[in-house]
Amino acid sequence: MADATMNPEQKLRCLWKEMADVSQASAALGWDQETLMPANGQEGRGQVLATLAGLRHRLLSSPELSDVLDECTEAAEQGSDLEAMARLGRQRVDRARKVPEELAKALAAATSQGLAVWQEARKRDDFSHFLPSLTEIIELRKEEAAAIDSSASAYEVLMDEYEPGAQLTEIEALFKDLKEALVPLAQEGAEISSRLDLTGTQGEFALDAQKAFGAHCAEAIGFDFDSGRLDASAHPFCSGFNPGDVRITWRGQKDDFRPAVFGILHEAGHGLYEQGLPKEWQGTPLGSSVSLGIHESQSRLYENLVARSRGFWSWALPTFQELFPAEQGKTLDQLWPALHGVTPSLVRVEADETTYNLHILVRFELERRLFSGGIAVEDLPAAWNQEYEDTLGVTPPSDADGVLQDIHWAMGAFGYFPTYTLGNLAASQLFDAAETDLGDLEEQFSQGAFSPMRNWLGDKIHSQGSRWTAADLLERATGEAPQSQAFLQHIRNKIDALKAL
Amino acid sequence: MADATMNPEQKLRCLWKEMADVSQASAALGWDQETLMPANGQEGRGQVLATLAGLRHRLLSSPELSDVLDECTEAAEQGSDLEAMARLGRQRVDRARKVPEELAKALAAATSQGLAVWQEARKRDDFSHFLPSLTEIIELRKEEAAAIDSSASAYEVLMDEYEPGAQLTEIEALFKDLKEALVPLAQEGAEISSRLDLTGTQGEFALDAQKAFGAHCAEAIGFDFDSGRLDASAHPFCSGFNPGDVRITWRGQKDDFRPAVFGILHEAGHGLYEQGLPKEWQGTPLGSSVSLGIHESQSRLYENLVARSRGFWSWALPTFQELFPAEQGKTLDQLWPALHGVTPSLVRVEADETTYNLHILVRFELERRLFSGGIAVEDLPAAWNQEYEDTLGVTPPSDADGVLQDIHWAMGAFGYFPTYTLGNLAASQLFDAAETDLGDLEEQFSQGAFSPMRNWLGDKIHSQGSRWTAADLLERATGEAPQSQAFLQHIRNKIDALKAL
Repeated sequence: MADATMNPEQKLRCLWKEMADVSQASAALGWDQETLMPANGQEGRGQVLATLAGLRHRLLSSPELSDVLDECTEAAEQGSDLEAMARLGRQRVDRARKVPEELAKALAAATSQGLAVWQEARKRDDFSHFLPSLTEIIELRKEEAAAIDSSASAYEVLMDEYEPGAQLTEIEALFKDLKEALVPLAQEGAEISSRLDLTGTQGEFALDAQKAFGAHCAEAIGFDFDSGRLDASAHPFCSGFNPGDVRITWRGQKDDFRPAVFGILHEAGHGLYEQGLPKEWQGTPLGSSVSLGIHESQSRLYENLVARSRGFWSWALPTFQELFPAEQGKTLDQLWPALHGVTPSLVRVEADETTYNLHILVRFELERRLFSGGIAVEDLPAAWNQEYEDTLGVTPPSDADGVLQDIHWAMGAFGYFPTYTLGNLAASQLFDAAETDLGDLEEQFSQGAFSPMRNWLGDKIHSQGSRWTAADLLERATGEAPQSQAFLQHIRNKIDALKAL
Repeated sequence: MADATMNPEQKLRCLWKEMADVSQASAALGWDQETLMPANGQEGRGQVLATLAGLRHRLLSSPELSDVLDECTEAAEQGSDLEAMARLGRQRVDRARKVPEELAKALAAATSQGLAVWQEARKRDDFSHFLPSLTEIIELRKEEAAAIDSSASAYEVLMDEYEPGAQLTEIEALFKDLKEALVPLAQEGAEISSRLDLTGTQGEFALDAQKAFGAHCAEAIGFDFDSGRLDASAHPFCSGFNPGDVRITWRGQKDDFRPAVFGILHEAGHGLYEQGLPKEWQGTPLGSSVSLGIHESQSRLYENLVARSRGFWSWALPTFQELFPAEQGKTLDQLWPALHGVTPSLVRVEADETTYNLHILVRFELERRLFSGGIAVEDLPAAWNQEYEDTLGVTPPSDADGVLQDIHWAMGAFGYFPTYTLGNLAASQLFDAAETDLGDLEEQFSQGAFSPMRNWLGDKIHSQGSRWTAADLLERATGEAPQSQAFLQHIRNKIDALKAL
């Protein structure tokens, strides 16, 4: 509890820390739920997480915290950390206070039920089963957006939860350029790839050796196992409780090493960000990551720009072949097509690096139309299939592999998808800027020298917490606003390399 | 949050559940800390646990909860569950409200520091290093006891936290009788044992096979792995978050299987209690175990009366020898002396079943004298050594293996030790009563039939939650008040069996 002898910043730190500690407890219990919890723990754990969410909301919307934020705003010098702390804190508090408790409860109930209904609908391949639930969730999210800011577009308000400060018009322009260039690039890549042998990553790979290889790579890029763990889960994720305790998870496929290796490097990229957050701001509004887009830039950078590179593999191949003796004699050239081939497909989570963003652009388009009233919820399956045909040139044979494939909408997470593409674009920008500062990065990777880039990211991104908006942070790090050129050039290079095989 | 449309019981359930959920979160995070947490997570985890403890205290001492308890007391029919709920709830709330926040903070700080100082003192074998810290902890605990009930003896007030409703005079009488009979019995047992080969449980035992054997036994006695887990930790323990999620831990010794096997059966006994708590009372004042003594009766019953019995081993030996092929050909008679031998020793946690309670009686004696002023803290090492000489016939060569061996006092846990002996005595009473109802239990164990006794305990103990006091519960289950005869007869039988070898 804050007390009267404290100055405004001390009071804010005290109250915010309490709320952040409750979030941290929830995160740890959520991790446990996905990795180790026995089956019958489900019901009790759900109740505990709901209780903690309620307590957190009560702390975040308490009049005491609100008063302390006012005190801080008054006491803070312009441009100071305290001013940023008070401003960010105020945004979070206002957002929490503006949503009536009844609406928050209705949303929690609708999405909790929505998840179960969606699972069943996907199993049955029956969108109509999900339709009433999805309609309700969308209506409630519209209500929520109106409660938070009735003057802005609902979709922008929702997106702000995941990508604070993002402007819808800017993202629309960015994604429009991206789409225009990427659709033909993907077609070109697909045509070249169709003539290549894309099976180089297939074989027989013992799961424990896959984990060992993944952990070896994660450690090499700087993931600190004294401040983290790697465990199995049904869907890979990263959860950072605090910089000293960051948990990443993985799943493997026995006949192809890509899901394990690229999944672990992806999550380790998230993990480096969490482990590198500034300790002196921990438990304050400045102490967490800035946005989902910037978070995804870290994971995608390590997954795609490090772990699929020639430099990385010339360092990694000997260890790989030690752990998988059947792979001895395999060359990087044999792996290459499977690491970089372009194959337009139906399912986002299995998409290659080139076509992945097209899956996101489909969802971004549909989400905006849903929230602007440009499309009715019941017309979503047809619109989905049309968008896939237009954008990726493939048509889902079923809704299970189409409009029902993602969990996000059942959770009410509208405005989340675009952060994946923002992350992919930012990853290339950051990589290029790091290379400008540090010289040939692939050359460094081939020597196992991953720390220069890691330190660069630590300095420019991780250690900055949420001091700046995502766009400002990127501009400070790279000298440029968010753009798609670096990403498109990277894809161009990949396709040229495939062509040259 | 409770709302006005609820009846008093609904309101109580709502408010109590919130507090219990916070406790559950703390328990889960505590388990994680002892089993899996990476080293650098320590600092952040400590802060989260302190925050949750503060929130829990705030919820437990809230005026709203207090008012609802009054409403329940008024609404409840005499002898009803609701009356018991309100009475128990009131006791917990009053205890929490009577301790001033300043004192609670001072105690938390003193014991947190005390733990570190004690560890250092034990390492250095230097009681004087621990003396100032221990003195402060004792003074603060005296203050706390006076704040809770200045008319009762401080030691009884503290004991009440672990063994609610226990009367000090009754326990003194019980333990006096026990001591008079047990000291000569232990001497007799030690003399016989000194002529026997006690190495039958030694050998080479792979740790994963020890875990597999322990898990096999735990499952056989009824521990439900869909509602629990078994993991490694430095010190074995059981933590039940809710009946659907109960975690037990173990540690093994490569050259002797006893710590693993008896440890796992001990913790599984605790675990059966937690898994068997009544679901309909979960999150109410009636939904948890009744006392540490009754909890220990369940663990000791399985550890000593089941897992050391001939019936158990004639069922278990084939699996044991399958997992440890080097043990093939070993007979139960060869194991027997190591399972039951009596060897007066210095360290409680390594003590055999016969001498274990003598270690407790030493601590009980010293604790009472500390709190009655009959002994000064600085004279504790000398008094400890004298008591060991008088009671067990051994003298510690160092304080590290003497007065500094246990963690309890550094945690401020005075009045905790007697619950171990209460549990041991109750275990024998319960076993005998179950046998009267169910017939020859060892015969059943030899067939792998553990469920009749488990169901009996479920009915008489587990499913009763904290509806009755420990003494009432025992009397309802066995027809008798707490007594030492059943335990002493059990020890007498063991010694006679050793004599007959």
